[in-house]
Amino acid sequence: MRALVLAGGLGTRFKSERPKVLHNLLGKPMVWYVVSTLRQAGITDIGVVISERTEEAKDVLGSGISYFLQKNPKGGTGDAVLSASGFWKDREDYLLVVNGDSPLIMAETVRNMQRFIHMVEEYENIKLSGVVLTTRLPDPTGYGRVIKEEGTDRILRIVEEREATPEERAVSEVNAGLYVFFIPHLLEVANKLKPSERTGEVYITEAVNLMASMGMEVRSFMATDPTEALGVNTRWDLSLAENVLRIRLIKHWSERGVTFHIPETVWLEPDVTLSEEVEIEPDVTLKGRTRIGRGAFIGRGSYIEDSEIGEGVKVLPYSVVIGAKVEEGAVIGPFSHIREGTTVGGSAEIGAFVEVKRSSVGRKVKAKHLAYIGDAEVGEGANIGAGAVTANYDGKKKHRTVIGKGAFIGSNSLLVAPLRVGEESYVAGGSVITKDVPDGALAVERAEIRVLEGKGRRKLRD
Amino acid sequence: MRALVLAGGLGTRFKSERPKVLHNLLGKPMVWYVVSTLRQAGITDIGVVISERTEEAKDVLGSGISYFLQKNPKGGTGDAVLSASGFWKDREDYLLVVNGDSPLIMAETVRNMQRFIHMVEEYENIKLSGVVLTTRLPDPTGYGRVIKEEGTDRILRIVEEREATPEERAVSEVNAGLYVFFIPHLLEVANKLKPSERTGEVYITEAVNLMASMGMEVRSFMATDPTEALGVNTRWDLSLAENVLRIRLIKHWSERGVTFHIPETVWLEPDVTLSEEVEIEPDVTLKGRTRIGRGAFIGRGSYIEDSEIGEGVKVLPYSVVIGAKVEEGAVIGPFSHIREGTTVGGSAEIGAFVEVKRSSVGRKVKAKHLAYIGDAEVGEGANIGAGAVTANYDGKKKHRTVIGKGAFIGSNSLLVAPLRVGEESYVAGGSVITKDVPDGALAVERAEIRVLEGKGRRKLRD
Amino acid sequence: MRALVLAGGLGTRFKSERPKVLHNLLGKPMVWYVVSTLRQAGITDIGVVISERTEEAKDVLGSGISYFLQKNPKGGTGDAVLSASGFWKDREDYLLVVNGDSPLIMAETVRNMQRFIHMVEEYENIKLSGVVLTTRLPDPTGYGRVIKEEGTDRILRIVEEREATPEERAVSEVNAGLYVFFIPHLLEVANKLKPSERTGEVYITEAVNLMASMGMEVRSFMATDPTEALGVNTRWDLSLAENVLRIRLIKHWSERGVTFHIPETVWLEPDVTLSEEVEIEPDVTLKGRTRIGRGAFIGRGSYIEDSEIGEGVKVLPYSVVIGAKVEEGAVIGPFSHIREGTTVGGSAEIGAFVEVKRSSVGRKVKAKHLAYIGDAEVGEGANIGAGAVTANYDGKKKHRTVIGKGAFIGSNSLLVAPLRVGEESYVAGGSVITKDVPDGALAVERAEIRVLEGKGRRKLRD
Repeated sequence: MRALVLAGGLGTRFKSERPKVLHNLLGKPMVWYVVSTLRQAGITDIGVVISERTEEAKDVLGSGISYFLQKNPKGGTGDAVLSASGFWKDREDYLLVVNGDSPLIMAETVRNMQRFIHMVEEYENIKLSGVVLTTRLPDPTGYGRVIKEEGTDRILRIVEEREATPEERAVSEVNAGLYVFFIPHLLEVANKLKPSERTGEVYITEAVNLMASMGMEVRSFMATDPTEALGVNTRWDLSLAENVLRIRLIKHWSERGVTFHIPETVWLEPDVTLSEEVEIEPDVTLKGRTRIGRGAFIGRGSYIEDSEIGEGVKVLPYSVVIGAKVEEGAVIGPFSHIREGTTVGGSAEIGAFVEVKRSSVGRKVKAKHLAYIGDAEVGEGANIGAGAVTANYDGKKKHRTVIGKGAFIGSNSLLVAPLRVGEESYVAGGSVITKDVPDGALAVERAEIRVLEGKGRRKLRD
Repeated sequence: MRALVLAGGLGTRFKSERPKVLHNLLGKPMVWYVVSTLRQAGITDIGVVISERTEEAKDVLGSGISYFLQKNPKGGTGDAVLSASGFWKDREDYLLVVNGDSPLIMAETVRNMQRFIHMVEEYENIKLSGVVLTTRLPDPTGYGRVIKEEGTDRILRIVEEREATPEERAVSEVNAGLYVFFIPHLLEVANKLKPSERTGEVYITEAVNLMASMGMEVRSFMATDPTEALGVNTRWDLSLAENVLRIRLIKHWSERGVTFHIPETVWLEPDVTLSEEVEIEPDVTLKGRTRIGRGAFIGRGSYIEDSEIGEGVKVLPYSVVIGAKVEEGAVIGPFSHIREGTTVGGSAEIGAFVEVKRSSVGRKVKAKHLAYIGDAEVGEGANIGAGAVTANYDGKKKHRTVIGKGAFIGSNSLLVAPLRVGEESYVAGGSVITKDVPDGALAVERAEIRVLEGKGRRKLRD
Repeated sequence: MRALVLAGGLGTRFKSERPKVLHNLLGKPMVWYVVSTLRQAGITDIGVVISERTEEAKDVLGSGISYFLQKNPKGGTGDAVLSASGFWKDREDYLLVVNGDSPLIMAETVRNMQRFIHMVEEYENIKLSGVVLTTRLPDPTGYGRVIKEEGTDRILRIVEEREATPEERAVSEVNAGLYVFFIPHLLEVANKLKPSERTGEVYITEAVNLMASMGMEVRSFMATDPTEALGVNTRWDLSLAENVLRIRLIKHWSERGVTFHIPETVWLEPDVTLSEEVEIEPDVTLKGRTRIGRGAFIGRGSYIEDSEIGEGVKVLPYSVVIGAKVEEGAVIGPFSHIREGTTVGGSAEIGAFVEVKRSSVGRKVKAKHLAYIGDAEVGEGANIGAGAVTANYDGKKKHRTVIGKGAFIGSNSLLVAPLRVGEESYVAGGSVITKDVPDGALAVERAEIRVLEGKGRRKLRD
């Protein structure tokens, strides 16, 4: 079975320069979910109908897909299917057609639908001309209603809400936007499809209606979950669909041994990987290709993107970790900012108001408060005091700082790169260090202290 | 049509010194929403009944409103209407009466109700004696039930839950706390209103019941949305009502081209203005008179109050911006604190653990980590290093710092105000600068570095 | 009445090394809630059946409880009751049996159930052989169905979903996992309990079924709230149960005069105590033995654990306060980190990116930005500048800093402990202070400033 995704429309109700199907849900464009579902359902021959404005879909979906251009993005779903006739018309097989704005359809449903068709072939010995994915909604407002022969699954017609009679509107079974057609039968009706008088669009549901009126066998197939029917027409729909996908992902990981607190507040993207015994507090954000190791704890509000968090790591509340690696047993936060190109070594401790960028921080290093470590290599067990800063930028270029194992960098000191501070060396608090410090040495930059009796009080009072 | 808002009650179930109707929802007092709905519905003659303890309502609601004092704040809604008889009794017109604790009634509903009354006048040629806004609730517990003549919209009586028979309790249509009376008919029943034996209060619903029992025409009018019936009697109701108002506001902006992620976690107040293509991450707070420009991105957990965010600005997660202006294309955060009286220029970058207060930060300025900029003017393109601080306070007064265009302020340096650091000047890292630096100059305050071989290791080990 | 809690099972669907009943909800193990409910219901004789792997329950639940070992943790609930026969078999009384994974049952329900049994004794003059707590669920999938004699509360049998006929599955009344047995009657069936053929487990519901089949009187008792039936079998159930407990707690405090904004995002643990007129913004976390005083404001996202917050304190957004005390009228945050062993005095102000640890901060002290105060005593009214740091650690030991009343600690200065800075003394900005400063003195450590004309521009441009 081949599948054709209709992704040429623009979605004017989004009020956006970006075409609807390219808007993101959990960091991935809407149409990505549709294609991903088809692939998970085992369908390998996938065509995507795009229009000029949705060409970017090619970059998003990558190779292994046939693209077809719908010249008129307002031509409607029927026009879209016809625009891609080269993809299907010569085959004696089924064609699956799905709207690009239906990101909630599940692979399991598509697989079941394929099985259903094969079972009908086998047991009833017929080819179904069409099968329409449907669901029942408590409030079907806004959806196309599926009118069936009473007591059967035979579809008589699909009516748009605007054209439905009051009786038809009372029908709770709705069109979920996914169809399978037997191609030879689709061809029979294809050249009879006419644009809607009201909108000028050609609808693919018209093919269903023509088939049914010609006595061909068109049946409904019920979705696994009513949420699958949600077609995304507005940004509000987008928010709702994103919530549904998100909760599905969270449940998926919950079943695999992850504990979520207030799960409905957690942001989780499809490429994130979690492990058993991970604990996720509320308001956590996990983005991109993040991986979280066994037993890690991610505190409230932490925001982790494209990062690797090792086993047993504790990320305390409100830490931001982007493009970094935090190794086994390290403790980060609260309020740490770990940036791109950083590795934090095992059992290291990075505390509040500390930023680390493009640095390699060794095992058991401590930098517990108010420090900036940039373009640096910090040796195992070094201690970085509060307010210590690596001055990696001189106004023109970035330079590197190397801090040896076990070194002690006093509070409020400044290491002016390029610089090497030796192993077990000691930089006295408040010193500005501009030249290398040998292993084991103490470096201090400090003027004499002057104490002026009584002058403090005068300054404050007078 | 005139409207009378009943805002004299205290709301003892709130357990608060502050009267119920003055408690805030999304930063505005409850009664503000009621008056605002009436104004949006085109009603200009508005009276508000207050009691001694709710006098503050005058400050909140402002001018253009007639205030009436209810002497006994426990007198009940009927007593409240009578307390304001001067507002209505001489008019041959309709009077709208609404509870001050019904903040969820929508202007659209009030407008439709007015139209309904005019249509009845026109087509049935009668004056309705009373119209009661009602809704159906799946669980009507706690609400007054509206008992109607079967198959019609004629109200027979409204019964409080406590006095309802089991059959009456089973009625799902409830009183939403908004009434319209034809004044001459209201006058007929007004002097017959008696206090409840149980509570001693006079209820305005008694007027409805008297009218109905006297054969006057009282009808129900269905609210647009069942949430409109929520009367706020407890702080829990307050939380629920605030959620409803909030989701309505979010949907409003969603329809105007704003994308919300996990919208139910976003805080949005009524005076906030958003633009198309704005993207709002979860847990964002937008308060007061905040305006967000086209295409801006507001990252998770950011907290923005009374501020103006320009086009295409990126506010990265967990930034707090209060009373400030951030211009086109600037990037803020994560963990930036932009305070009152600050302007951040276009394309500037303010990073983690940076606080800016009462300062003007020029275009393309960078202050990326751990800095404090207070009472300063920072010229275009200047670079403020990590840990750099403007010492604006000398223990007695605040002074200003001026940093010239393109200046470089080294890390951990201190600029002691009043001070002028010239254009393209260079303050070496760790320097304390107490006197002006000419344009193009380098200023350095630094003692000699002493290196004591072996002493570091001894300090750490011994 | 004695009560027996079944806490020997492991809960394999949790995919956890930790037994299910020891997983936390709002910081307390699941089984703690069950025992706590029994105690609140006035039951003092409590037995807990544990298995080898759940021995830790003893530490969690403490003394005053009898523990019984279930040798086979896969023996099932019936086996568990038999394992503890020493606890109950000799008594002519009722035994309450409850699953350790039913944390949502409410004390009120248990009390009502006891009253029900006593009323039946008194008015019907019979001993009920068994009473089963039940509830009706809109979707009973997954629960044991309670089959009753039509039109009565007599239970005929409880059937597991897997063994239910389609008619039985349609029953919406389910077993909530709490039973009361009349011990002499329980003994009659106890030795007849047989393991399930499918799972090999002995179920306590089998005792109910045997009693009913032998003509003994077994009745249902309806839970106060359907959520009580939720048995926690998966981590997803755990998340849901935690949400239910959380919302109950929030409602509890809401009724006592606390205002919550977006309450469903607030984390609140059972030992937290709040006061009237407290206002809690969204995403707040309140953990452990935290107490919040009257009229305090807790800003969005603040995270407070084991701390005492005084009357009228303002905790501005995104502050983390752990193991500390903040006194009346102080203002904390945004982005403050107040750590263990700290007291912040009345009306003090701790601002953004300030960390305070094991320190006593006096009344009216100001430390508004980017400071670290550790192991210090700060006198009343002292002012701590931006970037000021107490260097409390010398690489080997922690030392204390004492700052006198009214002292002024300039920005970016460093106080190297052990150190005493006198009252009304003045530490000039950027100074490193290593020796005591007398009261009223000014201390400055600063080298001469050198200004090199033109050199700044050359460094930046060339």
